[in-house]
Formats: sequence, C-alpha cells, structure tokens
Amino acid sequence: IAARIRDFPTTVFTEFSALAQKHQAVNLGQGFPDFDGPEEIREAAVRAVRGGVNQYAVSSGAVVLKEAVAEHALRFYGQKVDPGSEVIVTNGATEALFDVTLGLVDPGDEVIVFEPYYDSYVANVTMAGGVPRYVLLRPPDADHARWWYDPAELEAQFTSKTKFILLNTPHNPTGKVFDRAELEHIASLCIRHDVLAVADEVYEHITFEPARHVRLATIPGMAERTITISSGGKSFSFTGWKVGWAIGTPALCSAVQKTHQFVTFAVAGPMQHAIAEALRLPDAYFIELAQSYRKKRDLLVEMLDTVGLRPIAPDGAYFVMAQIGHLGFPDDFEFCRYLTRDIGVAAIPPTAFYAEHHRVHGSHLARFAFCKRDETLLSAREKLLARL
Amino acid sequence: IAARIRDFPTTVFTEFSALAQKHQAVNLGQGFPDFDGPEEIREAAVRAVRGGVNQYAVSSGAVVLKEAVAEHALRFYGQKVDPGSEVIVTNGATEALFDVTLGLVDPGDEVIVFEPYYDSYVANVTMAGGVPRYVLLRPPDADHARWWYDPAELEAQFTSKTKFILLNTPHNPTGKVFDRAELEHIASLCIRHDVLAVADEVYEHITFEPARHVRLATIPGMAERTITISSGGKSFSFTGWKVGWAIGTPALCSAVQKTHQFVTFAVAGPMQHAIAEALRLPDAYFIELAQSYRKKRDLLVEMLDTVGLRPIAPDGAYFVMAQIGHLGFPDDFEFCRYLTRDIGVAAIPPTAFYAEHHRVHGSHLARFAFCKRDETLLSAREKLLARL
Ligand SMILES: CSCCC(=O)C(=O)O
Ligand SMILES: CSCCC(=O)C(=O)O
Repeated sequence: IAARIRDFPTTVFTEFSALAQKHQAVNLGQGFPDFDGPEEIREAAVRAVRGGVNQYAVSSGAVVLKEAVAEHALRFYGQKVDPGSEVIVTNGATEALFDVTLGLVDPGDEVIVFEPYYDSYVANVTMAGGVPRYVLLRPPDADHARWWYDPAELEAQFTSKTKFILLNTPHNPTGKVFDRAELEHIASLCIRHDVLAVADEVYEHITFEPARHVRLATIPGMAERTITISSGGKSFSFTGWKVGWAIGTPALCSAVQKTHQFVTFAVAGPMQHAIAEALRLPDAYFIELAQSYRKKRDLLVEMLDTVGLRPIAPDGAYFVMAQIGHLGFPDDFEFCRYLTRDIGVAAIPPTAFYAEHHRVHGSHLARFAFCKRDETLLSAREKLLARL
Repeated sequence: IAARIRDFPTTVFTEFSALAQKHQAVNLGQGFPDFDGPEEIREAAVRAVRGGVNQYAVSSGAVVLKEAVAEHALRFYGQKVDPGSEVIVTNGATEALFDVTLGLVDPGDEVIVFEPYYDSYVANVTMAGGVPRYVLLRPPDADHARWWYDPAELEAQFTSKTKFILLNTPHNPTGKVFDRAELEHIASLCIRHDVLAVADEVYEHITFEPARHVRLATIPGMAERTITISSGGKSFSFTGWKVGWAIGTPALCSAVQKTHQFVTFAVAGPMQHAIAEALRLPDAYFIELAQSYRKKRDLLVEMLDTVGLRPIAPDGAYFVMAQIGHLGFPDDFEFCRYLTRDIGVAAIPPTAFYAEHHRVHGSHLARFAFCKRDETLLSAREKLLARL
C-alpha cells in the first residue's frame, strides 16, 4: 500500500451511513436527498438508456451536456463559457476536485483551504504530494452575524509555493455563503500572488435570501484563473448519478482532461443526457428548490433548538452545524455515535473536516443534513424530543 | 500544470474517434460496440432509475452488484470471493486500474507491463511516480503460432523494486489469450519475487476456441497476490455505463478503496443495478457472445486479408492487428490518418501502446475493431475494396 494513502481513514460518510443503517437510525448524516429529483429528468434518463446512448461518451463529456453547462453559466451568472474547450465532465464533482488537484499540484506545492473542508480536498492534496495551508472559518459571535475568517490569517497563507486556493461556496459543512466583498478580497489576493482558484460551487442553487450565490469566476480578474466545479447531484437531487464538471480556460481544462482521460476516461452517458435536460429547466425550478430547502432548514433549526442542540442557521447548502459542547461528550465522534446508536438519529462529526491539530475547533459541533423529506425530519424530531 | 501529466498526449481514442467523425469514416478504431447489449439489461437500468436507486451508492459498490460479481467469479472460475470485503466497484475498469496503481505504487517502485499495453497503464504508473518495465509481445513467426514473449526477458524485469506485474488477458490490442502454461510461469515469478499481480480481464468472455480464458487469480499461489479487474462494458456491450470492479484480498481491496473513496467516491447506481442483473445472465448468453464475435472476427480477418492488410487473427478480445509495413507509409499514425481521411475507415495506430523508444515494434501495424454490426464491417469492406 502506497505511502500517499496509508493514513487515510474510511470516509466519515461511509462510517456513519453504515452505522445509521445498522441501528435503523433516521439518517441526517451523509448529504443525499431521500427523495428523487424531477420525474421528467428521471424520464430523460430512461429515454437516453432506451435511445441508445449506452456506449462511451466523448472523454471530455457529451456535447449536449457541455453545451447545457455553458448555457446555464450564461443564464445564471452571465459567464461566457465555450462548451468545446472550457468544460470537462467528470464522475461527480468529487472526480473534478481530484483531477484538478492531481493535474496542477506538484510535490511541495501549497494549496490553501478553508477549514472545516470537505474531506476529499486535503486527501487530494496529500495524494498529489502537496501541502495544505489552512484558514479557519469561525462561527458567528458577538461581532459577527455569520461564519467569518480573519483576513490577515488568509493573507498569511499565501506564499511563493501557493498553487491554488480551494474555495467552497455555499460551504459544506457550515452553510456559509461567501459574499461579494469576501470574494473580492480572495480575488485580490489571488491576483496579487498570481495564484489559481478552484471554486467548488456544487450548492450554487441552494441559498437562502438575503444570501445569494456569487460565482467566484465572475469577480473581475478571476475568469482566467478560476476552475469552477459543480455537479447535477445537489441541484437536481440525483446524487447517485455522479455527473459533475469543471469549467475553466482551455489551458486549465486541458490539465483536468489530461488527468481525467486516464482516471475514468468518461462518464455514464445516459446520466449526462439527463443532467443536460435538467440544466435547462426553467427558472421556476431553481427558485422552488431553494424555497423548499429554506423550509426544511427552518424545520431542522427549530427542532434542534427545541431539544437544546444550539443550531447555527446556515445561509446555503443543506446542512446545519449544531453546538453540542455544553452536553459534556468527550468529542463530536462520541456524540454522533451516541446519537446514532442510542437516540436513533445519525449526524456527522465535523472533526472529519479539520486537520488533526485543529480538531478542537470542530469537536463541539455536529452536522445535520436537511435534504430529507419532511416526514423524515419530523421522525428525527420525535426521536430527539423523546430520547435526548 | 503538474509535471506528472505535462507530457500526456490526448488519448489516441479521442483523436481517432474525432477524426472518424470529421471524415464520416466507418469507425473501426475505438473499441466500443455500435450496438447495445441485451434489451432486458437496458430495461433493468430503466427499472433502477424509475425504482429510485438514484442517490449515492455505497462507496465500495452497491451490495447487489458486489454479490453478483462474487457469484459470477464462482460460476465461471470456481473463485471464492467475499462480496463484503473483496470487491470494489469503480467507474469502469479504467478507474480500477488507476486506483490500484495510485494505491500501491510509491515513487520509484517498478511495474512490469507487456508491450503493447492499454495506454492508461503507463500513464497511471507515471502519475504515481513509478517506473514501467517492459516485456515485448512478439507477433507470430515461423517458430510461434501465436503472439509470444521471451521468458528470459520477462524474468529480467523482476527486481527488488517491482511492485506488481500488470497483465491483460485477453490482451488488447493483440488479441493474445495467455494460456495456463504462460500464467503459471508468470505466477512462479511473482511468487519467487514476492510481487503482486494486477490482471485486467475485461475481455474475459470474448475468446475463440480452442483459446480459453484462464483467470490469473485461480493459478495456485496467486489468489492472495492478485487484483483482478473487469467490467460490464465489454461483456454486456454497454461500454458507456462505466461500471467496473476490482477483486482481491481485503488488504488489497482496502488500498483500492482508500483511493477510490476520494477519486470518485461512488459509481452511478442505476448502472450498477443493471450490470448486477447482467452478470446473472444464463451461460447461453456468454456462449452466444463469444460465437457472435468469432463470426465478426472471421469477417474482419477475411476482409483485411482480401485487401492485402495482412491480419493476425486474434484468440480473444475484439481487435485485429494488421501488418501494414509493406505498404510504404512512414508509420502507423500516417497510415491510420490516411485510412480514416482518404479511405473512410478508421483504425487505431498501435504505437500509442508502446513506449517511445519501442515504437519500431508497432509502427508497421494497425489495429481494427470488430465490435461492430455486420453491416458496419461490410461497409468498411466496401470502402477498403474500392479505394485502398
Ligand atoms: C460523497 S458523500 C458526501 C455527501 C456530501 O456531500 C456530504 O455529506 O458532505
Ligand atoms: C476507454 S476508450 C478505449 C476503448 C478500448 O478499450 C480500446 O479501444 O482499446
């Protein structure tokens, strides 16, 4: 077993989804909807399978999907994207994140990530032989209404070895939506230090007003230095279809493609065709998606509050971080295991998203997902009320 | 762009499928059927989509597919596989090959590959910082009825740094099916040098009697040191579904899974369910598949022979290597571009499958695929007859 992966644990999602299943817990852990996306998109997949797009797609992506990704970028962000040279389709955003890291990071290069981070970010940097540099996202406090970071701390992470900054907005697990001023600050640093940016924007359509998603690549000066990553999973509630993409300049896409062509070569064709249709759904679809998730957020926040789990209401994505420090558990893993096993509600321990020496910042938190049917949320509510 | 990928060309499949399309050539290049697999398997995918297996599959693979892979291994090879710990499902065999390489090879480790090799093998070793060591497969000659290798040459490649040997049987692009004596020789070397084996057996069901596929992992002493890779693409004619897997001991699967969980995390669920059904098709399906391909092989061999392209009839897989040295082209790329552009038939230049300093061994060859409808093969025949 190679040194680069020797210390990787099983992902927290695998561990807690298995634990949830074992104990028949209501699963508010791993972030997948327990409902499917639009019927018409499911039928688009059926048509694609029956219509015979069942042989290798073009390696960089089916033309119809690359065009839909470009149209979608123009429609929502006024971003001009050439579908022929500026989009690479990958096996979910996960593969795009991996490909871009392996394709850009040489051993010793540094990558700046906000902490907590989606677990694959740092694993990818490690596999590429790079060095992660962390910037802490801090919870709301007396002086800050939202999750925030110290600008000086971010500035200090830029060095001559920085290859890119990896930004996730809307942010998993905190639900922070970086606002324009923050993105402009980040952009100014990238430009000053001539550094690239990788923007994981998979929750782009899940924000709660007045928060609004701003695409990093549309900040002046960033188009030429940003790789935007997104996917169909979150926006259309088909996480299991594994259709993601990277958008960037032809040169940056070429780095992604050179890796992608040998990592997976291509992505399941029928799913690409269906997600292409999904990206062309009318605006009303996207508005309703956000509204529906807003109600679910409010329901989850209210219930966590009621049972004393001190939720921090998120501005985007479909997770709530709850403060559990006052409950006296040794750490978040112990709490989440207890909650799954004894209360019957699964949540994710956020220290899986912190570097080992920074765990203190996450060990008093637990992450709950609200991408669930109302009845699922209500049955979690019942268990929490009855047993916690 | 990282050094590890800087010199990668666009894959020969992408180049020649695009060229074929541009010139409306009959595409006997990239190896994908121009027909779909069984209707009932297509409908199994439809049922899975409609039945709602559209959220993240288990990262290591849907239980139903891992069980089907284990059953299939027992049915065809008497191989005992624990579906819970000895199977990892990947985004096609391509991802399995990548994951196993990144998961096992440390910088400086050596990997033995037979040449010509499927192009991703050496790219993977390069990305992992490993060193490929080559063993030449030589075409039939006065003393050898089939493609062969020099046993001493193979033995000489084993060193103290060898991590694994990568074997592809049935072999793309030569069509060689390694026989039991050859596999026993390879096994004895692996055992003597305490080296692992990675066996890419994606063409396991496409062999032509008297040739028979022997699974490397079933050679005595090899079960504990072999990772077997296969997929649904070739056996069931759904190359675009991208469902592959790796079979090996729990320890070896753990190395694959540690990589896989961050490379793609999971594979499209509906396709996994459909391929699980496919693996349980009755024996008659597999017998007919091989018979049908045998007829197509004979048709292609006859036609290449007729037009003077000197085919070497393969024992397995769905490609024919043809000798084109006597035609006076500078090399195989020039010939294949000419054939695609001016004759209207696309073939793959095999030097894409040789190390740069070994190209002389492939530059007088061209690879033709026969995983095509008879009418496609006949229309290629017409063009070759009329124009070559
Ligand atoms: C790839 S499984 C993780 C799903 C998800 O995004 C999360 O739960 O954070
Ligand atoms: C992944 S595209 C290559 C298909 C194939 O196996 C071949 O043509 O050799």
